[in-house]
Amino acid sequence: MASKEKTLDDLFLHTLKDIYYAEKQILKSLPKMAKAAESDELRQAFELHREETEGQIDRLEQIFELLGKPARGVACEAINGIIEESKEIMEDFADSEALDAGILSSAQAVEHYEITRYGTLKTWASQLGLNDAASLLDQNLQEEKKTDKLLSQLAEARVNAKAA
Amino acid sequence: MASKEKTLDDLFLHTLKDIYYAEKQILKSLPKMAKAAESDELRQAFELHREETEGQIDRLEQIFELLGKPARGVACEAINGIIEESKEIMEDFADSEALDAGILSSAQAVEHYEITRYGTLKTWASQLGLNDAASLLDQNLQEEKKTDKLLSQLAEARVNAKAA
Repeated sequence: MASKEKTLDDLFLHTLKDIYYAEKQILKSLPKMAKAAESDELRQAFELHREETEGQIDRLEQIFELLGKPARGVACEAINGIIEESKEIMEDFADSEALDAGILSSAQAVEHYEITRYGTLKTWASQLGLNDAASLLDQNLQEEKKTDKLLSQLAEARVNAKAA
Repeated sequence: MASKEKTLDDLFLHTLKDIYYAEKQILKSLPKMAKAAESDELRQAFELHREETEGQIDRLEQIFELLGKPARGVACEAINGIIEESKEIMEDFADSEALDAGILSSAQAVEHYEITRYGTLKTWASQLGLNDAASLLDQNLQEEKKTDKLLSQLAEARVNAKAA
């Protein structure tokens, strides 16, 4: 298909494959982040988010089914880069007092990538009249926003604990 | 320096270098996105954001100066990945009806990366008692949030225009 013939449906499907790949990479990286985290709260937050991520992947598979397309990912250089940076931080700050701050920061970068992608996909699904898909995407979006808020609270609690 | 001796100051400086590199890459990519955009509103938004980005880089240089460190970037795989994806979308959807939607989506991914990094850096600056740095970072954060909101409005205006 020539690029000029492409439509918003094609862009929606492409971006759905992109976030599907991203979620699968995130699912693999969360146990590593949980293992590296020093604080119990942070470890528990990652373990909870791992379960949520499984549910989110399930919702994405429902959307592929609604579209009559096989659930298939497409390599997403953005999430690969974000996860690569997160690995570097975990290595460079291993055993240091700043390790958890660095892991929290990496996890929030992941959340913001998901928030922007789900926000975009939900807008497009509505535009395309895919209301069931829009509803499933909104559920993922709200979970990601909740997780980002929780991570911000953990980051601020660290600041307050140090100040006390 | 062994990683276990590293402190939050080191993590702050590392992440400052990361966003400094990222802003410089964004400065280079904004004119390309402006040139590719089909709608006047989107092109103007990118041109305005290019000017803002120059001011943001200037604020980051002020922070390096406050720290007594040379302003120097460090390769940021996350922004490289996000910009790489944005280039792919511009190529794959060139001349198509979905091009502007794709460019908007890419630009919002860039904004969200900056929002998460500035939010984190501002929190750390406060924790480290770097109040002038925290204020400069907050100025960048508020500009990025405003840009993301403007891009969301442009994306929704597209949806409404199509529905009308």
